[in-house]
Amino acid sequence: MPEQKLFQVDFEPVGRRGEAGTGDSLLAIAQNVGVELVSLCGGIGSCDSCKVRLMAGTLTDPTVEEEAIFTADELDQGWRLACQAEPLDDVKIDIPPESLTTPQRLQIEGEAGEMELDPAVSPFDVQIDPPTLHDLRGDDERLNDAVLAAKGPSLQFSLPVLNSFSSQARALDWSVRLAISDGRFLAGVLPPGSPLFGLAVDIGTTSIAAYLVDLATGEIAGKTGAMNPQIAYGEDVISRILYIDENLEGKELLQARVVNTLEELLSELCAEADASREQIVDAVVVGNTAMHHIFAGLPVKQLGEAPYVPAVSGPLSFPAQAIGLKLSPGAAVYMPPNIAGYVGADHIAMLAATDAWRAERTTIAVDIGTNTEVTLVHNGRRYSCSCASGPAFEGAHISAGMRAAPGAIERVQIIDDQIRVQTIGDQAAVGICGSGVLDAVAVMAGSGLIDRRGAIQREHIYAASLDDGQAAFVLAPAAISGNGRNIAVNRKDVAEIQLAKGAIRAGIEILLKEAQIPAAEVEDFVIAGAFGTYIDVASAVRIGMFPSLPLDRFHQVGNAAGMGARLLLISQAARRRAAEMVEQIEYVELTTYGAFQEEFIRQLSF
Amino acid sequence: MPEQKLFQVDFEPVGRRGEAGTGDSLLAIAQNVGVELVSLCGGIGSCDSCKVRLMAGTLTDPTVEEEAIFTADELDQGWRLACQAEPLDDVKIDIPPESLTTPQRLQIEGEAGEMELDPAVSPFDVQIDPPTLHDLRGDDERLNDAVLAAKGPSLQFSLPVLNSFSSQARALDWSVRLAISDGRFLAGVLPPGSPLFGLAVDIGTTSIAAYLVDLATGEIAGKTGAMNPQIAYGEDVISRILYIDENLEGKELLQARVVNTLEELLSELCAEADASREQIVDAVVVGNTAMHHIFAGLPVKQLGEAPYVPAVSGPLSFPAQAIGLKLSPGAAVYMPPNIAGYVGADHIAMLAATDAWRAERTTIAVDIGTNTEVTLVHNGRRYSCSCASGPAFEGAHISAGMRAAPGAIERVQIIDDQIRVQTIGDQAAVGICGSGVLDAVAVMAGSGLIDRRGAIQREHIYAASLDDGQAAFVLAPAAISGNGRNIAVNRKDVAEIQLAKGAIRAGIEILLKEAQIPAAEVEDFVIAGAFGTYIDVASAVRIGMFPSLPLDRFHQVGNAAGMGARLLLISQAARRRAAEMVEQIEYVELTTYGAFQEEFIRQLSF
Repeated sequence: MPEQKLFQVDFEPVGRRGEAGTGDSLLAIAQNVGVELVSLCGGIGSCDSCKVRLMAGTLTDPTVEEEAIFTADELDQGWRLACQAEPLDDVKIDIPPESLTTPQRLQIEGEAGEMELDPAVSPFDVQIDPPTLHDLRGDDERLNDAVLAAKGPSLQFSLPVLNSFSSQARALDWSVRLAISDGRFLAGVLPPGSPLFGLAVDIGTTSIAAYLVDLATGEIAGKTGAMNPQIAYGEDVISRILYIDENLEGKELLQARVVNTLEELLSELCAEADASREQIVDAVVVGNTAMHHIFAGLPVKQLGEAPYVPAVSGPLSFPAQAIGLKLSPGAAVYMPPNIAGYVGADHIAMLAATDAWRAERTTIAVDIGTNTEVTLVHNGRRYSCSCASGPAFEGAHISAGMRAAPGAIERVQIIDDQIRVQTIGDQAAVGICGSGVLDAVAVMAGSGLIDRRGAIQREHIYAASLDDGQAAFVLAPAAISGNGRNIAVNRKDVAEIQLAKGAIRAGIEILLKEAQIPAAEVEDFVIAGAFGTYIDVASAVRIGMFPSLPLDRFHQVGNAAGMGARLLLISQAARRRAAEMVEQIEYVELTTYGAFQEEFIRQLSF
Repeated sequence: MPEQKLFQVDFEPVGRRGEAGTGDSLLAIAQNVGVELVSLCGGIGSCDSCKVRLMAGTLTDPTVEEEAIFTADELDQGWRLACQAEPLDDVKIDIPPESLTTPQRLQIEGEAGEMELDPAVSPFDVQIDPPTLHDLRGDDERLNDAVLAAKGPSLQFSLPVLNSFSSQARALDWSVRLAISDGRFLAGVLPPGSPLFGLAVDIGTTSIAAYLVDLATGEIAGKTGAMNPQIAYGEDVISRILYIDENLEGKELLQARVVNTLEELLSELCAEADASREQIVDAVVVGNTAMHHIFAGLPVKQLGEAPYVPAVSGPLSFPAQAIGLKLSPGAAVYMPPNIAGYVGADHIAMLAATDAWRAERTTIAVDIGTNTEVTLVHNGRRYSCSCASGPAFEGAHISAGMRAAPGAIERVQIIDDQIRVQTIGDQAAVGICGSGVLDAVAVMAGSGLIDRRGAIQREHIYAASLDDGQAAFVLAPAAISGNGRNIAVNRKDVAEIQLAKGAIRAGIEILLKEAQIPAAEVEDFVIAGAFGTYIDVASAVRIGMFPSLPLDRFHQVGNAAGMGARLLLISQAARRRAAEMVEQIEYVELTTYGAFQEEFIRQLSF
């Protein structure tokens, strides 16, 4: 028997490699190396939840199941079902985010455009003359002279750096690596050759993602996430603004909570990357305007009152120490500009990361969260707005809602008239997270279980009656659920999704109206944000949250805000572009937009 | 009877005005308006303690007493005894500091050269467009746009200013006065037209002087002083450096003590000038290198170890908030450069205030304190050194020593073979302060009570035996003293003064040696500092602390360091000069100077 030929299979962007023998499906290979693909139908080729795309190499020919699911164009583009396709050669496979079932569901991954490596902080190794009885220059002058002699810049020092430099220089025997920020500020002093890191943070209303970035390579050296602890003081930004307004020291408390959480994440990141706090010489923090302001300790009262203006809309830079963040003693925190009271620095970061801002094609970019920001780029102009989409997609205000955690139903599909659900971690269902609710409502609308207004049709085959007599769509009956309760979607849940999708779609329509183009002209539709990563775009289109465009125009880019923060860490050009961006965007305030209410009501129906 | 003619008498620099009838002595007029002149002989013209100088107008002709005391040259220059001279016309009288007996003996007055009014912080009144539904710019952008439209600079904002601006602007209805620092940093926001103030501080090892300066006029709007609370942790800088080295958080504690004292002084100053903290938009703080470093929170360990280099020798600027000083939210603290580990920013300030640094004539400038800094300017070169003169002149280490407070003997003279003393506040003597000890030792040396080595001659007519059998010079016997004890100077006290004057004179001689000139070539001898203000220069010359130059070459300029701080507040040119100064000074480190020890021993004798 000849030795069986083994093929290498590279899964991207997760960066895992597997080996395959003849007859192994991509799904099986992925499972072998711990890449968890969604597989609603159980691998029989009757759903598209495990869809992947061939980037290089050869697979077996498409099966009849695949031909039924993909168009000829899609097959030409390399779209395949992982459960059907088998390698015939070394292959490179791209997994779209929605095909991944990630046990860690805080959104910390993200796609980003090409990055120029030109960080704001760069290293400078220098040997300094030690003081002697004949050379009594002060330590600052001694250092500056040495840097100038080595053809470096004339440095500026902050108090915290000066405070630590004298003992550091002596401990390192006057041979040091300097971290120099913006070509002149001393951000930190380290042993020669030490790697320098930057911290990139996306503070969402609900969750926080943090990345440690190697400034020499631009690569992510560590990543982690946590819930935003401010949730205890209000689920959405308005309630947190109210909390601050009504409580003395409320602003300081909420700021401290998020800074403390970041401190914990920093400890995790340092352990992961084997880095010290002193090696973290720069930070970029993004968030919506309220999160931005609370993090920086800025006033938010005016964000809660018409006309809802930010205290700070320009780019902001301040010492990390000023807010109690323990990085390198001279490290600065950079925060990109805010577009408006409800379109913040995170949206700028997202536009920077995806390059949507510079798109030549007509492009819509949405960042879905408790607030959903939308930007339309068309014909050299950029229009932005913010939609109050609410926390339904975070699982809040949904009867069986839960955050994206193990046991949450994240996918719902009808396969052969059967309701098929996928839970996070393949555990017994205990609730429904945002993408699951969206799928469920799409199934309800698509199957006629709800009418255009969202009313559940009691006589429908998928309709069930709950104990309280309410009609509902049961996804996991009490008998098989993980908590002995019916996991179901009721009329009120449908209404929550209606309000959310109505707000988002109305925002999109208003921007299209401003640009005077029909939706069909949108060539690229970029979807960012934690929730946006995991949704089934087809479901979102089916319920009318997004306009009905060919699915290949949609791009789910993951946590693009976080990736934007990373980009702003490693590219000074990106920082300059961010400042330009905010000047060029035409912000449309929906709360005072005449036609908005009418459009919103129109968009409530299915 | 014709109406008696009244003359106006202006006393400078104290700025008091009195009226005089024919036959009133200047001493009597001064007493009438609360200007307290020293009067050791009781107004009989037998001492020179009430000497003053006529600047304008006409006085009665010199009396025989005056002709005995002043040289013809001095009389030509206008020197007179206040007890002898009477106005014949409106007159302007200059009172040298040593002729004043000031109940507030913390040295907060000072002379300064002409000041260019060009403060680092200047006001900019601007009317800002309020936000509307059609104008949603952020508050920062809104402000910057308004300033640019009014032909102002593009502003840079710090976090604390941004933190307060939004609510301030709304409270002031968008009409504000900005305090702009260095032409671009927003230091504070105030109601339109508000006066802006600067804080000038001289932190001495023993005492702190603080001034509130009106930045529009350069005038002192308030002044106050306090003891340096760090005294509890060591009398001199070395013992404080040791304290910090040996105690965890020692540096933070000593910093907090001085900052807290400044906070108290600030409250006094604000009350005096009817100013708010927000109106204090700039600060200049000077001190010797150790005081400078502790105030700024910089490391001092290297100041206590050879080769004694400063952590920071360049000019330093940092946010007042960074060290917990409550001024206007964006106010910076500027500290001038340090020359060396023991010649600090206070000496630079003194050189700036007196313009000694730019002297064309051969000039010595000394700032007498626990450390005494000396600079010699000759032939375009500047030489500086620091002498460890110790705390004897502060009244410490002297058996009956006390600080300059009511009841302290501050002047000692022999008049008609009688020992005459003057106490502060004319109260019964309870001790001797620095200038009194200096006078006493000068009298002892001049009368032969001590020999060249400082030994008290028991057989001398002024010698007394104390209860313990020691020989001493009794200034106030127990029977008439304020505390029932003999107020006396003993051998050990003489030795303390010997060490102090020996160190100062040796430093002066070493600098003269460096410049290769004899002492007689010194044309101007500037004496600054709290103690230097009140000493009798003739006494200092008599004991050999200063070289034997004609007395009119000596200039007692008061707290020139404090006046330098004031100058640096109101003159950006002075800040630039300060930075140049430190580059041009040739520092002579005495501790490692070969010939110093020999010179010091030589200078111990009388």
